[in-house]
Amino acid sequence: MTNSFVLKGDILWSRTPQDMTICENQYVVCEDGVCAGVFPTLPERFASLPVHDYTGKLIIPGLVDLHAHAPQYAFRSLGMDLELLDWLDTQTFPQEARYADPDYARRAYTLFVDDLRRSSTTRAVLFGTLHVDATLTLMGLLEDSGLITRVGKVNMDRNSPDCLREESAAASLAATRQWLDGCRDFTRSRPILTPRFIPSCSDALMEGLRDLQRETGLPVQSHLSENQGEIAWVSELCPDSTGYGDAYDRFGLFGGDGCPTIMAHCVWSDEAERARMKQNGVFVAHCPQSNVNLSSGIAPVRAFLNEGLSVGLGSDIAGGVHLSMLRAIADTIQVSKLRWRLQDASLAPITLPEAFYLATRGGGAFFGKVGAFESGFEFDALVLDDAMLPCPFDLSPLERLTRVVYLADDRAVAHKYVSGLKLM
Amino acid sequence: MTNSFVLKGDILWSRTPQDMTICENQYVVCEDGVCAGVFPTLPERFASLPVHDYTGKLIIPGLVDLHAHAPQYAFRSLGMDLELLDWLDTQTFPQEARYADPDYARRAYTLFVDDLRRSSTTRAVLFGTLHVDATLTLMGLLEDSGLITRVGKVNMDRNSPDCLREESAAASLAATRQWLDGCRDFTRSRPILTPRFIPSCSDALMEGLRDLQRETGLPVQSHLSENQGEIAWVSELCPDSTGYGDAYDRFGLFGGDGCPTIMAHCVWSDEAERARMKQNGVFVAHCPQSNVNLSSGIAPVRAFLNEGLSVGLGSDIAGGVHLSMLRAIADTIQVSKLRWRLQDASLAPITLPEAFYLATRGGGAFFGKVGAFESGFEFDALVLDDAMLPCPFDLSPLERLTRVVYLADDRAVAHKYVSGLKLM
Repeated sequence: MTNSFVLKGDILWSRTPQDMTICENQYVVCEDGVCAGVFPTLPERFASLPVHDYTGKLIIPGLVDLHAHAPQYAFRSLGMDLELLDWLDTQTFPQEARYADPDYARRAYTLFVDDLRRSSTTRAVLFGTLHVDATLTLMGLLEDSGLITRVGKVNMDRNSPDCLREESAAASLAATRQWLDGCRDFTRSRPILTPRFIPSCSDALMEGLRDLQRETGLPVQSHLSENQGEIAWVSELCPDSTGYGDAYDRFGLFGGDGCPTIMAHCVWSDEAERARMKQNGVFVAHCPQSNVNLSSGIAPVRAFLNEGLSVGLGSDIAGGVHLSMLRAIADTIQVSKLRWRLQDASLAPITLPEAFYLATRGGGAFFGKVGAFESGFEFDALVLDDAMLPCPFDLSPLERLTRVVYLADDRAVAHKYVSGLKLM
Repeated sequence: MTNSFVLKGDILWSRTPQDMTICENQYVVCEDGVCAGVFPTLPERFASLPVHDYTGKLIIPGLVDLHAHAPQYAFRSLGMDLELLDWLDTQTFPQEARYADPDYARRAYTLFVDDLRRSSTTRAVLFGTLHVDATLTLMGLLEDSGLITRVGKVNMDRNSPDCLREESAAASLAATRQWLDGCRDFTRSRPILTPRFIPSCSDALMEGLRDLQRETGLPVQSHLSENQGEIAWVSELCPDSTGYGDAYDRFGLFGGDGCPTIMAHCVWSDEAERARMKQNGVFVAHCPQSNVNLSSGIAPVRAFLNEGLSVGLGSDIAGGVHLSMLRAIADTIQVSKLRWRLQDASLAPITLPEAFYLATRGGGAFFGKVGAFESGFEFDALVLDDAMLPCPFDLSPLERLTRVVYLADDRAVAHKYVSGLKLM
């Protein structure tokens, strides 16, 4: 199996949020898993590489899901008539508690990984549960899938029912070390420290996680400023903090040198919180569908872009019900229009090229040089077949991509490459 | 081919917006195309009827699309970065002008009708274009499909480009009569008078359509209070009217005895306009996805329900991009949450049973006794197979329906019956 080859087709990718490059009927080259560029005619130096001819199909960078809860995939779409805190108590926590059972965990995670593998997602950053064994099962399945993922065993030692709470900060930290030992040999599914959110983690646990982060250099993921009830609770729990982001920052778990961090949602992050995120290089995982389903609101993505924050998209399974990052692109555009119309006319709606950028290069940046067909980028690609969407008139490549984003399902994903490896 | 039979399976249907009836593993009986009821065990008097055993599948009333533009299906999802009036000028009108070409019309409408036939829609109320021949082509294809539809040749004699404008009120009315002659023999695809909207129709045309309505007793469809720019324009065009609805009412084309009427959107209809609609029995076609895509806003569906208006759902192809009424149910719930969160906390979000009611019985009422498994109702049914959505734990019928609404595509529609006729 060689990781050097050439794909031919209609190639679309983003240089910047506004600048989508469209290379009709051209060649994109992968050398040892790394992109060597896009060319209108194949340069002589690549003449010996195998060419996979996808003429008439679309070739785009792989899509990156910056935030999803793997254990919640099983109950996606159920119990959606609740807001965040009630939904956690009545739906999510009891459901996550099932993953104490290794058989259930394997069965449920197999369904999740099968669907993720077939989806348009090439890389994902995932929450597991607090269970060490189940999280290792998930990572093993992901490792075998060929997808590239960061996965977190969740830390949570307060404010949840007995069935889903670690008994102390020390127990949580010990379990975390056990989990890190267990996933040491994985190369494509790697760990990320995962304090669930401030309300779930005692001060001692946060401090222990900070020490562990400094020791290991691992990245961190959590939730930020998603729902107004949650934000009010955090301000009760952390009376000394100036805000939700500050509460993480006081524990040293809010980005900065050597601590790459993703914060999901940021629906209600104000200017000060956003400035801190920019300063600390914290990634926003924008999860439009989840923010609708849980009545959280609509995040100011236009402000994130204007202010130069790092932003990617997340499905947030199961606040969001759809795994598809194509859907997340469309949702991003759609909710931004409602925010503009109903909430703040100063922040223009997000365009398709911008939302596409967020799903590719925006989230890809968390993984390094990922999400574009620029020379030196890891080679993640989707070959999209839009033959399922017949049209009575001719379409440009951008129009065809637009139709796939809005209309297609996973059947449109004909082939998928992740870091040069062909998964399908 | 008999129109009398029994279906067995997990049967769900609405008595009222709040009261969903769930009959697990029961029998629903169709006699001569009419529902004879749902029974836990099959009564002796139906013992001679053939039983189609759909055990393990869901059986629901057919879904009704109260508002879609058939000619716009071809370009759905394109040009979505515009608001209504600009979108009409730059996208819709040039696209609809293509239907002057009979070959194009047949090709495009064949794609539309094929997809509609396979979809979860059993009945639809559609706009065509202003072209007589193309509209008859559409109706012929629909007639053959077995679906039950109302279709309108569009009337428009002002404020559009030459390529898509009738040359006078008299010419528009003459073409309308020619069209009505042409579709006289259709039984399942029947006409509905279709002034495009106030800005497209001269006073003389509206008066002529009122006379034609009184003469024929045909129903009427149009657009109302969709977008703020449109509403401002209508108030300029009709300075004597007290509002957009009043402008229709002054021409006698706003419901009332003998004039069944659908008005699409009603996003910005105020209390007075809604009261008039209730008084006149005007149906609201709520089109949540279109109202998002064109940045129109979110209609106050909770107010419609509280005030006792007649409401159904519409895909509004191609303001909406999805033909699926399952998607329209989910969209209705989702946008109602954003309206509640961002615009008006006094109007609670729409629940799944309520949105399901709107898509079945709510819109079905426009066609008479349609949209429920009550004795005496026309027998429209879908058999839904949710096997494509495996789950690691047991689900109730309502949970399974919820998953189909949020997650499934048309592949879930295993069988479809319309007024007793099996289409698939």
